[in-house]
Amino acid sequence: MNHATIPSKHASSPAARQEPSALGLRRHETPAPVGAEPISRFQVPELAELTPELAQIYADVERNLGFLPHWLRALSVNPDTACRLARFYLHLFNPERSHLSAAERELIAVVSSSTNRCSYSVLNHTRALGDALDDGVRARRIALDHHHVRLSKRERLLADVAEKLTTSPASLGAGELDQLRQAGFSEPAALEVLEVAAFFNYVNRLTLALNIVPDQQFFAH
Amino acid sequence: MNHATIPSKHASSPAARQEPSALGLRRHETPAPVGAEPISRFQVPELAELTPELAQIYADVERNLGFLPHWLRALSVNPDTACRLARFYLHLFNPERSHLSAAERELIAVVSSSTNRCSYSVLNHTRALGDALDDGVRARRIALDHHHVRLSKRERLLADVAEKLTTSPASLGAGELDQLRQAGFSEPAALEVLEVAAFFNYVNRLTLALNIVPDQQFFAH
Amino acid sequence: MNHATIPSKHASSPAARQEPSALGLRRHETPAPVGAEPISRFQVPELAELTPELAQIYADVERNLGFLPHWLRALSVNPDTACRLARFYLHLFNPERSHLSAAERELIAVVSSSTNRCSYSVLNHTRALGDALDDGVRARRIALDHHHVRLSKRERLLADVAEKLTTSPASLGAGELDQLRQAGFSEPAALEVLEVAAFFNYVNRLTLALNIVPDQQFFAH
Amino acid sequence: MNHATIPSKHASSPAARQEPSALGLRRHETPAPVGAEPISRFQVPELAELTPELAQIYADVERNLGFLPHWLRALSVNPDTACRLARFYLHLFNPERSHLSAAERELIAVVSSSTNRCSYSVLNHTRALGDALDDGVRARRIALDHHHVRLSKRERLLADVAEKLTTSPASLGAGELDQLRQAGFSEPAALEVLEVAAFFNYVNRLTLALNIVPDQQFFAH
Amino acid sequence: MNHATIPSKHASSPAARQEPSALGLRRHETPAPVGAEPISRFQVPELAELTPELAQIYADVERNLGFLPHWLRALSVNPDTACRLARFYLHLFNPERSHLSAAERELIAVVSSSTNRCSYSVLNHTRALGDALDDGVRARRIALDHHHVRLSKRERLLADVAEKLTTSPASLGAGELDQLRQAGFSEPAALEVLEVAAFFNYVNRLTLALNIVPDQQFFAH
Amino acid sequence: MNHATIPSKHASSPAARQEPSALGLRRHETPAPVGAEPISRFQVPELAELTPELAQIYADVERNLGFLPHWLRALSVNPDTACRLARFYLHLFNPERSHLSAAERELIAVVSSSTNRCSYSVLNHTRALGDALDDGVRARRIALDHHHVRLSKRERLLADVAEKLTTSPASLGAGELDQLRQAGFSEPAALEVLEVAAFFNYVNRLTLALNIVPDQQFFAH
Repeated sequence: MNHATIPSKHASSPAARQEPSALGLRRHETPAPVGAEPISRFQVPELAELTPELAQIYADVERNLGFLPHWLRALSVNPDTACRLARFYLHLFNPERSHLSAAERELIAVVSSSTNRCSYSVLNHTRALGDALDDGVRARRIALDHHHVRLSKRERLLADVAEKLTTSPASLGAGELDQLRQAGFSEPAALEVLEVAAFFNYVNRLTLALNIVPDQQFFAH
Repeated sequence: MNHATIPSKHASSPAARQEPSALGLRRHETPAPVGAEPISRFQVPELAELTPELAQIYADVERNLGFLPHWLRALSVNPDTACRLARFYLHLFNPERSHLSAAERELIAVVSSSTNRCSYSVLNHTRALGDALDDGVRARRIALDHHHVRLSKRERLLADVAEKLTTSPASLGAGELDQLRQAGFSEPAALEVLEVAAFFNYVNRLTLALNIVPDQQFFAH
Repeated sequence: MNHATIPSKHASSPAARQEPSALGLRRHETPAPVGAEPISRFQVPELAELTPELAQIYADVERNLGFLPHWLRALSVNPDTACRLARFYLHLFNPERSHLSAAERELIAVVSSSTNRCSYSVLNHTRALGDALDDGVRARRIALDHHHVRLSKRERLLADVAEKLTTSPASLGAGELDQLRQAGFSEPAALEVLEVAAFFNYVNRLTLALNIVPDQQFFAH
Repeated sequence: MNHATIPSKHASSPAARQEPSALGLRRHETPAPVGAEPISRFQVPELAELTPELAQIYADVERNLGFLPHWLRALSVNPDTACRLARFYLHLFNPERSHLSAAERELIAVVSSSTNRCSYSVLNHTRALGDALDDGVRARRIALDHHHVRLSKRERLLADVAEKLTTSPASLGAGELDQLRQAGFSEPAALEVLEVAAFFNYVNRLTLALNIVPDQQFFAH
Repeated sequence: MNHATIPSKHASSPAARQEPSALGLRRHETPAPVGAEPISRFQVPELAELTPELAQIYADVERNLGFLPHWLRALSVNPDTACRLARFYLHLFNPERSHLSAAERELIAVVSSSTNRCSYSVLNHTRALGDALDDGVRARRIALDHHHVRLSKRERLLADVAEKLTTSPASLGAGELDQLRQAGFSEPAALEVLEVAAFFNYVNRLTLALNIVPDQQFFAH
Repeated sequence: MNHATIPSKHASSPAARQEPSALGLRRHETPAPVGAEPISRFQVPELAELTPELAQIYADVERNLGFLPHWLRALSVNPDTACRLARFYLHLFNPERSHLSAAERELIAVVSSSTNRCSYSVLNHTRALGDALDDGVRARRIALDHHHVRLSKRERLLADVAEKLTTSPASLGAGELDQLRQAGFSEPAALEVLEVAAFFNYVNRLTLALNIVPDQQFFAH
């Protein structure tokens, strides 16, 4: 039963007997289905309509992830926008180029997105963080609130920098950059830490504004 | 591998070759384990130390949930505190007494706890909401951000009231109470809606302050 | 003259002479009375309608306080809600069980309620704090803003913990618990400190949502 | 007993017996007095040191209020500052010049100061508002939270404008000015409404920064 | 071209060709002028209507600034309000009386006004700060965000105190006053620092509420 | 005199005579220069060190803007980061591809950056907005606070959407997208509006974190 309204499950309680009108749905009543949820607030182009450039991006992303994610289809309403985001993402998350480990990139992605309350990106990257950590439970706990999970000193620093750059970018100062240096990040690596957090502040805003619905693959095990 | 530090997974990238010192952990290096995470910031009493009254509560809760949750063990450092919370909870969530359905109570629980960023309660009640809805995916999406999930009008009202009573209690006014009446809630039922949200504002504060670690059962399927 | 509109008291000022229309009420004009203010936004049951269980609670609370407070009458629209709150309160504020002094409990009550801008609870517990301190002036100053009153180190800690747990529960950390220990609170006593603040975060939300009107007794001397 | 630390009043409770060390103060123990609270964080000049200009201000204010308030003595550490504030106040609150009634001016004063959590000004003007309304209970309730007091439409508008101009001055717009016009305020009177709220945003900041202690007269009946 | 709507400058881009309807204005289309912007939300009195007292103030301010600023004309809708503000300003900014340098006063003015997002006062005092510093570029950078400009230790302290007194007046404490003393400010001078910041919290609120339009002189070089 | 400390300009005032120690700098005293301000918190590579790819980007950007801006030099500490940002920018701001006019893109840029208090981007794009509007005064006023500038309905919508997407991305909903449609934006154009605002939320975070100093060219006329 997907996306159904909340059914009233209890039935013969004294309260229910006394005040049936207080309950929106009576026992055994089948709630009206909410209906299929569109994956975006804008039109989603058909695959046949794609420009050659965008078709190539689709192939690259699908090969990379194993499926065609909703975000790429939703953003394709403006093909330039879809191409710009996908190219940026594929370049930034290329393990051959990155100064960070996959787990570090995904930790920053999850914390930035969770701070912005962007459930699409949180679910997407919680799965990836779980894979990188080989610990899906820990990834889900970090996604809900990293402050209450015991992190290594290095993880704590990345999570705190990602959160601060997201919530109050003007207040991040020389102190945080020094901490990154002391934790062993070179200046190029430290800049990449900032860039990954900044990238999700851009991605989250598009995903939220279009209300892109999470892919079923994010919930697979 | 539970609660391990983030390992550096990538290895032979050009970046890694050029700047090994930028990376906290080199290839094949085994990260130091973070160590067992205590379930509370305070001492947790042994079962043998329980007062008779508390032992009875333990039995009641375990029968109710199918296991002995961390919150009950953690709060037992002050037996009166544990008893007060457990008695309140067992009375409030008794389906024989409640004016609300299980899904309604759990929706309020999840939204209030998510607004307070209390990951313990979110995980606990996301599971219960998933059971009540028979839709675990939908419950997880609501837990991350109810605003971006398509809810029924009645669910939307409960979620909005729970969030507002949590974030800015002084601003909830006669308008929201009228909306509850118009949605079919009697005054006793509407007061229970407010009470469930208020109850989690009390529970969340204790769970957060003690940093109680989620039970493994919350992640089982 | 209770609950009247603001009368225009000044009369023959030059401004008034020049611009009578700028003033809502002219000299000697009697403002229309606002009318009796109901003690709750919901119906308030008659005493004759009480269940035996609730009648017993009424007797206990009235014996305890010396009068029947509006909060108990207002919450009785859902008898279970009224019983749950009253039982919790009577147990938590029982001096025979508490690890805290009356002044400590009332300080936490006043600071939590003032932070939530719950005038009903502030007035109720300012009176009780004044009694416990034997200093009504000091209690009123604490109720308005504890930061600008000279407190003992122990009082300062309790006030700061109550405020922080109220405004940003996720940010209270191990540091505050250590400060409580260092101030001489055992772990059971420290947990009770947190519980009293959490309890008022529950009570305040119900009192605010129903807009319960303060009892006249709160203003007696 | 003025400004004393919180005494531990309870004594022979089981909790106290079990854990004496959890309590900061044992039974019958006399708490160390906090000591006399200075009326300002800066030096307060002696009366003999006053410039002739300031001595005249002292006489005017004392004749006006019936006593010499702490704020005037505290600000006199910079005689120009004290003169500027006192002259502004005496001119603005002169009933011969004002377009507002005393109750209207005091309502704006109390709401602005309460929003800024300036207990000195709140206590000072709650007393004056109580006198103007001939209803001290209502004045105290407004001081704690005007939203939960039943106000006339005109009072509600003044309170809301004062609060908004205090908390988010850039967001007050043409709409509020229209509402003032529709409520019968001429443009000069409406500007005075804004000016009184703005004046307290200036006064509150000085009173708070110097932590001026409320005068005993504010608590007399 | 003053206060015109945004013209659509691009013309023959493929996007424009494909979707002309997406663009509000086509190529070569002349946007409709927004029209003359009134300098205040209230009536502005003619010079001929001035009271003798206000006429004298106009002369003083015009001699002081070199022109008659919009703020004085706009506030004159209530002559008492205009006189009170102008007298306060002329007294406070009199270099013969002040304990601060012109650059210090203007720095506090710019930071307080920028924090309140009061563009009228920011533009007015950015010009004055540029004159006092003999560095208009630096003044403009401070106006946009003082945190990212390299300030002397003394300037940093003044800017931080002005910002804190503006945003959270109740949180400014004894620590800031000690820092002012250690930076060489006597208590009268430190009180003047607070007073200048408090003064702009009053002025900004009136300027914002009336939406006074900046004078052309603020942009001259 | 660039980036100097604030000089004490006033000299023979009575206050100065009475309390020389209250003033940090005496008359005629030359303040110690603050020293050259580095353009970034990280190292800035020499031109000779550039990779061929980055050298090409430098040529493209310099041809586009007429000079080599600090942001490109500062980000080059990680050549991949510099290339990613520059490519995104050159593609997004290409008038041949854009669905928006230059003035529309620059308005969104200025409002997003001003909301984030990123003075580097504000100054950069205020100049560009002034050019696009042919009205530098209006551009500077918008940069300080767009709410108090009279905008066309279409400009007001773009400014409000940019601000909301910046401050509270999760709260932008279907309503804003409908308003964009009604204002004549096609879905591809509306998505570009969101993308430009999201882009600056990424750029601002990097510029702020590195504290990149504005170029002198931003202040030229």
